[in-house]
Amino acid sequence: MIQDQRQFLLDLFKSAVDAARPELCVPQNLPAAPKGRLIVVGAGKAAASMAAAVEAHWPGPLEGVVVTRYGHHVPTTRIEVIEASHPVPDAAGEAAAQKILDKVQGLTADDLVLCLISGGGSALLSLPAPGLTLADKQAINKALLRSGASIAEMNCVRKHLSRIKGGRLAVEAAPAQVVALIISDVPGDDLSIIASGPTVDDMTTSAEARAILEKYNIPVSDAVLAHLNDPRSETPKPGDPRLAHVVNKLIATPQMALEAAADVARKHGVTPLILGNAIEGEAREVAIVHAGIARQCFEHDQPAAAPCVLISGGETTVTVRGKGRGGRNAEFLLALAVALNGHAGIAAIAGDTDGIDGSEDNAGAIIAPDTIARAAQAGLDLKQVLANNDAYSAFATLGDLVITGPTLTNVNDFRAILIQRQ
Amino acid sequence: MIQDQRQFLLDLFKSAVDAARPELCVPQNLPAAPKGRLIVVGAGKAAASMAAAVEAHWPGPLEGVVVTRYGHHVPTTRIEVIEASHPVPDAAGEAAAQKILDKVQGLTADDLVLCLISGGGSALLSLPAPGLTLADKQAINKALLRSGASIAEMNCVRKHLSRIKGGRLAVEAAPAQVVALIISDVPGDDLSIIASGPTVDDMTTSAEARAILEKYNIPVSDAVLAHLNDPRSETPKPGDPRLAHVVNKLIATPQMALEAAADVARKHGVTPLILGNAIEGEAREVAIVHAGIARQCFEHDQPAAAPCVLISGGETTVTVRGKGRGGRNAEFLLALAVALNGHAGIAAIAGDTDGIDGSEDNAGAIIAPDTIARAAQAGLDLKQVLANNDAYSAFATLGDLVITGPTLTNVNDFRAILIQRQ
Repeated sequence: MIQDQRQFLLDLFKSAVDAARPELCVPQNLPAAPKGRLIVVGAGKAAASMAAAVEAHWPGPLEGVVVTRYGHHVPTTRIEVIEASHPVPDAAGEAAAQKILDKVQGLTADDLVLCLISGGGSALLSLPAPGLTLADKQAINKALLRSGASIAEMNCVRKHLSRIKGGRLAVEAAPAQVVALIISDVPGDDLSIIASGPTVDDMTTSAEARAILEKYNIPVSDAVLAHLNDPRSETPKPGDPRLAHVVNKLIATPQMALEAAADVARKHGVTPLILGNAIEGEAREVAIVHAGIARQCFEHDQPAAAPCVLISGGETTVTVRGKGRGGRNAEFLLALAVALNGHAGIAAIAGDTDGIDGSEDNAGAIIAPDTIARAAQAGLDLKQVLANNDAYSAFATLGDLVITGPTLTNVNDFRAILIQRQ
Repeated sequence: MIQDQRQFLLDLFKSAVDAARPELCVPQNLPAAPKGRLIVVGAGKAAASMAAAVEAHWPGPLEGVVVTRYGHHVPTTRIEVIEASHPVPDAAGEAAAQKILDKVQGLTADDLVLCLISGGGSALLSLPAPGLTLADKQAINKALLRSGASIAEMNCVRKHLSRIKGGRLAVEAAPAQVVALIISDVPGDDLSIIASGPTVDDMTTSAEARAILEKYNIPVSDAVLAHLNDPRSETPKPGDPRLAHVVNKLIATPQMALEAAADVARKHGVTPLILGNAIEGEAREVAIVHAGIARQCFEHDQPAAAPCVLISGGETTVTVRGKGRGGRNAEFLLALAVALNGHAGIAAIAGDTDGIDGSEDNAGAIIAPDTIARAAQAGLDLKQVLANNDAYSAFATLGDLVITGPTLTNVNDFRAILIQRQ
């Protein structure tokens, strides 16, 4: 029996975030020292904290440069940290990408490039292919966003207009060895998607990129067309010898974060049940389904016997219809509270492992069986709050926000629902 | 390894429906013969098939009358079957209710009233309380439907304007013993909700009914007001001695149907995982969540190790935006196929255990990893089909509808997702 449900749920969330913290997951995954130099490059929301972790644990000399999002800077002494714009690229990101590219050139086979990759790296590493301008890329990007093209289609085009994405950074680093340490924030952990895979082979082709631009009638300059028709501009495919010197290593994933939380639950005598590391769907509907599963645990000891905790990751969506505040995790919890309607014995936490739920200052929030009643005492009808997408305000009023500040890592959302009978 | 996935899924669905079939669940739950007469009454979509099952297995003399929905007649020899309108009550239902009430009067303590209750019984047993007219009830019903009142509020008012609901049928049958055999189609199996609980105590009060009518400004006649103010019109509460002679027995529930399917899966060496017997939410979003859980089984052997089958019940909803055809189970499956996008090793069935998915002629449908590809060959883009709510047409084209005809019982929806690796 968990007495302090709130602390238990906070512990689970903390263990999930900790599993993805660079200071914990980077050191144990550092490669052996090379004969030659160690060059550190990287991009993503966790790039600075990953760089700091390398500096703190690397035994020998090193140098390098990484790019992270504005506000995600961490003090370093030997690796330069550049801040740039995310999700819309800016000139700072372009300059950083050029600097990174310069850094990995002129190396020998005795040197090692350590590449620190995390979510957000795609926008932060926006460098046009030779002969193209940032304006070319931006115009196509805007047109694609309006066109109805899928994410996969947009990524295919972007990769083929880039000088860094789709394995090209690793190709540029040859003949140096390349080890990429990767923190995944994408469902399924597809390495070619995380930060657009600067060190990873690419299944898509220039021909496909051209077909997509034609399909959506995207106007392109002669330079872009010439680039896409040039065979030398093709990305490296699986088995390409130009990537034989590359090792890609996932060091933190949504699944690892869920497993870490499951371990903590087990130590408390609570059975963990991981439902999925990539649960998607409209947040309020995902909550209704979770409520149904939680009730089943309480009433029938299925799919797990109480005391148990339902754990899941992934990224829900929120279709905003109201005028309130709140990210997808707060909305999920609000809808869960409404669906459970004060059901005894069920409490839950949900939060974004990057520490920021949507655009507010909270990582997430917590609910308990008394949430609806306490809200009513505070004059809040949670159904109306939900209709107004105002979860943040409600949880702020209740004092039930979870606030961590930016965690400087990101393995997507974390949700845990504790079910126990008296 | 299940070779014939389609047959396996059909077997699970059949076992779930069979668990709720009156010919299988009524005989084993028949009470001992009374000293006196056996009177059979009943109402609901399964009333006629339940009556036929009683006739086939009751060893002694009996007589009775039940009311079922138009088209749900089953041949009987000693129990009269009346058909009436559902979900909007009609005069045939009112006459049947009066006949049922007459049948249970003038009995002795040696007699036994066997009451056969199933979903839909509420509309089929629509008899106004003494002094009220059907027009009184209909006017209030219409106004309530327009008012925004919750289902619980509407049921409270209905029970207090009825001569049969909220335990009153059982009160009228005294001093005879009453045994009610109940097939549940409601989440949580609340006996007071199924068919508005004609043999079950009622927690709601006349005062609450009055307050609800006031809250929504529903105009009421003097007769209705007088009735609600008369203490003698109150429904029996829990512990009321007027219900001491009553035994209510759930003989088929959504949970029992899921357990029956789980048993069949186990016999085939497939691990069943019951997610919930009352899963709700928008069908297409519920499907996205189920897709996430199914992928997790395939990739991480969580929450169950493959080969496994995710089983759930309950009633999803469909917000119709397109112009196509199809019930909630077909829509769920269509969205599941789109979300799984041809994922290997995952196949599924979903259907309404009453045999009618929405208003079409199918109970449900089946999907497999090749569903999207086969649809594409037939010229169907399943995403567009989903946007048009046209699941029935697509599954009809593919030959993947599940057609059973009306099963004459109802324990809500049944879903099963089979996950196995090659």
